[in-house]
Amino acid sequence: MAKELDFLTKRSEDYSKWYNELVVKADLAEQSDVRGCMVIKPYGYAIWEKMQRVLDDMFKETGVQNAYFPLLIPKSFLSKEAEHVEGFAKECAVVTHYRLKAKEDKSGVVVDPAARLEEELIIRPTSETIIWNTFRNWIQSYRDLPLLVNQWCNVMRWEMRTRLFLRTSEFLWQEGHTAHATREEAEQRAQQMLKIYARFAEDYMAVPVVQGVKSETERFAGALDTYTIEAMMQDGKALQSGTSHFLGQNFGKAFEVQFLNKENKAEYAWATSWGVSTRLMGALIMTHSDDNGLVLPPALAPIQVVIIPIGKEAQMPMLDEKAAELGAKLKALGISVKYDNADNKRPGFKFADYELKGVPVRVVLGARDLEKGEVEIMRRDTLEKQNVGLEGLDGYIKNLLEEIQQNIFKKAKDYRDSRIYECDNYEEFKERVKDGGFFLCHWDGTVETEAKIKEDTNATIRCVPFDVEQTPGVDMVSGKPAKYRVLIARSY
Amino acid sequence: MAKELDFLTKRSEDYSKWYNELVVKADLAEQSDVRGCMVIKPYGYAIWEKMQRVLDDMFKETGVQNAYFPLLIPKSFLSKEAEHVEGFAKECAVVTHYRLKAKEDKSGVVVDPAARLEEELIIRPTSETIIWNTFRNWIQSYRDLPLLVNQWCNVMRWEMRTRLFLRTSEFLWQEGHTAHATREEAEQRAQQMLKIYARFAEDYMAVPVVQGVKSETERFAGALDTYTIEAMMQDGKALQSGTSHFLGQNFGKAFEVQFLNKENKAEYAWATSWGVSTRLMGALIMTHSDDNGLVLPPALAPIQVVIIPIGKEAQMPMLDEKAAELGAKLKALGISVKYDNADNKRPGFKFADYELKGVPVRVVLGARDLEKGEVEIMRRDTLEKQNVGLEGLDGYIKNLLEEIQQNIFKKAKDYRDSRIYECDNYEEFKERVKDGGFFLCHWDGTVETEAKIKEDTNATIRCVPFDVEQTPGVDMVSGKPAKYRVLIARSY
Repeated sequence: MAKELDFLTKRSEDYSKWYNELVVKADLAEQSDVRGCMVIKPYGYAIWEKMQRVLDDMFKETGVQNAYFPLLIPKSFLSKEAEHVEGFAKECAVVTHYRLKAKEDKSGVVVDPAARLEEELIIRPTSETIIWNTFRNWIQSYRDLPLLVNQWCNVMRWEMRTRLFLRTSEFLWQEGHTAHATREEAEQRAQQMLKIYARFAEDYMAVPVVQGVKSETERFAGALDTYTIEAMMQDGKALQSGTSHFLGQNFGKAFEVQFLNKENKAEYAWATSWGVSTRLMGALIMTHSDDNGLVLPPALAPIQVVIIPIGKEAQMPMLDEKAAELGAKLKALGISVKYDNADNKRPGFKFADYELKGVPVRVVLGARDLEKGEVEIMRRDTLEKQNVGLEGLDGYIKNLLEEIQQNIFKKAKDYRDSRIYECDNYEEFKERVKDGGFFLCHWDGTVETEAKIKEDTNATIRCVPFDVEQTPGVDMVSGKPAKYRVLIARSY
Repeated sequence: MAKELDFLTKRSEDYSKWYNELVVKADLAEQSDVRGCMVIKPYGYAIWEKMQRVLDDMFKETGVQNAYFPLLIPKSFLSKEAEHVEGFAKECAVVTHYRLKAKEDKSGVVVDPAARLEEELIIRPTSETIIWNTFRNWIQSYRDLPLLVNQWCNVMRWEMRTRLFLRTSEFLWQEGHTAHATREEAEQRAQQMLKIYARFAEDYMAVPVVQGVKSETERFAGALDTYTIEAMMQDGKALQSGTSHFLGQNFGKAFEVQFLNKENKAEYAWATSWGVSTRLMGALIMTHSDDNGLVLPPALAPIQVVIIPIGKEAQMPMLDEKAAELGAKLKALGISVKYDNADNKRPGFKFADYELKGVPVRVVLGARDLEKGEVEIMRRDTLEKQNVGLEGLDGYIKNLLEEIQQNIFKKAKDYRDSRIYECDNYEEFKERVKDGGFFLCHWDGTVETEAKIKEDTNATIRCVPFDVEQTPGVDMVSGKPAKYRVLIARSY
């Protein structure tokens, strides 16, 4: 076992502190001097870029095209959709002026009171309003539909309590917005995008997710249905990792987006929107990582293999050469490799650092092992070390990366599955939910029951899960009849 | 010759109007309802994405890593670098509040006066200040240098007169920021990035550029040297298409970014920054396009080949099949293909539409031509049509795309070179500059001469070009001795 890094808090001591430390120490992100806004550091951003690339390709395969809409939204736009304004016109950054001027004593700059905007502008918290205001001019006939648009951008919601990646005032995301001629097509699209998110989470992030539909209380402001993927973190809490909304004709009506159907009659367009954000970074970190640091799925690791030489100074040219050979072979297989022969850091420091950064495979090129035609391989997920012959080493590593990808998914899924409980007794629920986990409980469908659970336990209905065989029963809180079980958990 | 689209203003009639119409009609971008901010439409954004991908790879090849820094900048940051605040703390969007609340009569939302920020925040016009404020914590030793960071993001400068892509209040760009241990290394980096921009412009955009260094007046606010690439539009005006700045230690000092050098002494870090923006879209459009619409270089065209079938309804299944075969072959060569067999548009409409959109190669699959084993190929740059046999057609098209790429660069370069004039007489200059063109004139190096030229002619010194053999002479305005010639032109 590699030596544990004594400067990282253990998960068992303080999971929350462990997370905060890990994000900073693994060079993923840090707080900026602007309240609630983060700096995403190069190593963290490289993971986000890999996520973006995969998701973007998945979207485009379904016909989605990227575009870009303005950062600023006129205040009045928010008011056009009644529920939407309730949800989003609260904590947001408001632009009121468009000029600064030098102070008279030249000691700095002040806002120029003469440069006040007639109508204040809001930094987008989400872009339904400005996009549907634009769609009005793009949609005339059923032949213009479906319209499938996505943008990668920054958004801002003025959060009071922030945590790196999980909840920040500014964050990066993609927001897809589609317009359709029929209700059925829009509903299908909303579900299709949720399935893409689930596939991405499971196949690339190696994060198992529960797919389902939100209760009315938890819906996106302005949606008729919100679909969600919910992941379980190692502390048993749920992290909502992506949502897809069926918006009905709410925005079509609010922004007068009508089209002529095949019968030449005007109809309002049907809408969806769907998004994932840099919050996914939080899900990735909290699902797999351990007390030594990050554990990254090979599919998203910026560096998949690190090669570290160990030898005397005279042996270094030979080791450099061997490393270059191996590196070239791995790159030819599409594997990203870093060779670290920096002479100002001891191997032990490097080992700990790449463990902290979650590099899936470490190859130690030791002069003595090489004499035997061998290298030492360590896999980050299990920390197991093994000596492997040079012959066919590239193929061995390629297989190992695939095995790690499978293994961390299986590990996360086994962990999660072992903490999903059916529960029919509210007293028992209240006791057990303190330790985390996903609870499948019958719900009578009322807002009252939902509110009581939240008040008593701080847990919420995460979703009505799709993949659970539903049988009617009795609501554990109210004792009233319940048609189905919902997934309840404490959450981020 | 394809029929000219009568709805597009001719360049000879009104170049400016032609441009504005073309951007909208070719579905590249449009004005939004937010003053000065544009919507980049999917077709325009697809070109921008291709630009991003190429540039991003070029940056990364030189060791640059992407990161992300906050959108909002504390007002006081701008004041820390004396020249920088002069240049950027003027027309910018100012966030003063962080909450809206419902009006008492529920008729809308208003800014909550209780939610006023202690210090106003500025939407970044450029990010030197917040990035160097961050670098302070990232840089301790010479071993942390060079630090090579880039971000792709939106920025905002409150422009009074805007034009799509060329000058908009919000625009998309990349901004690279690097920190170095020595002056020499920073200067080299600034020049290296300029060369990358020039290579990108010429090899991918097919836009010939003049590389040079700006006069003091035209420098970036806070820079010791600003390097630039200047392109000539078809009206003979210059378009500054990318800049790279050597910032000296100005930001290192302003934000206290010091490192210990090899001798263990503290020094301020040396800086560069460099950026290109969606303005490149304007350069691309105005360099190549004609009265029929866009002409896109194949290297950046979202659709490189469009296939259009012509035949009777009964022949369509056969044509669909032939198109699928050809499409698959082209895709295997890495060529992007669109097959348009929409039955609600006549072929003539499709021809005009894809010409407007600048698709480099059009293949007409005519039932009659196919009987002879031929298709009709049209190349967008020359509008020439030719019948070509099906045998080896994919290879023929691949070569043709390369030929088009070369040809439009040569055409643009020949045009530009024919409009670069050496001029030694100010009266002659004043007369001729009205018709556009780049003028190489001796300059005495004074701000006075520069100002007089601008006042008299609205032309400015674009740069001291690198690739001109310089001989001393006499300033055409002042009659004083001049060490070199500068490039003078009217500009966008």
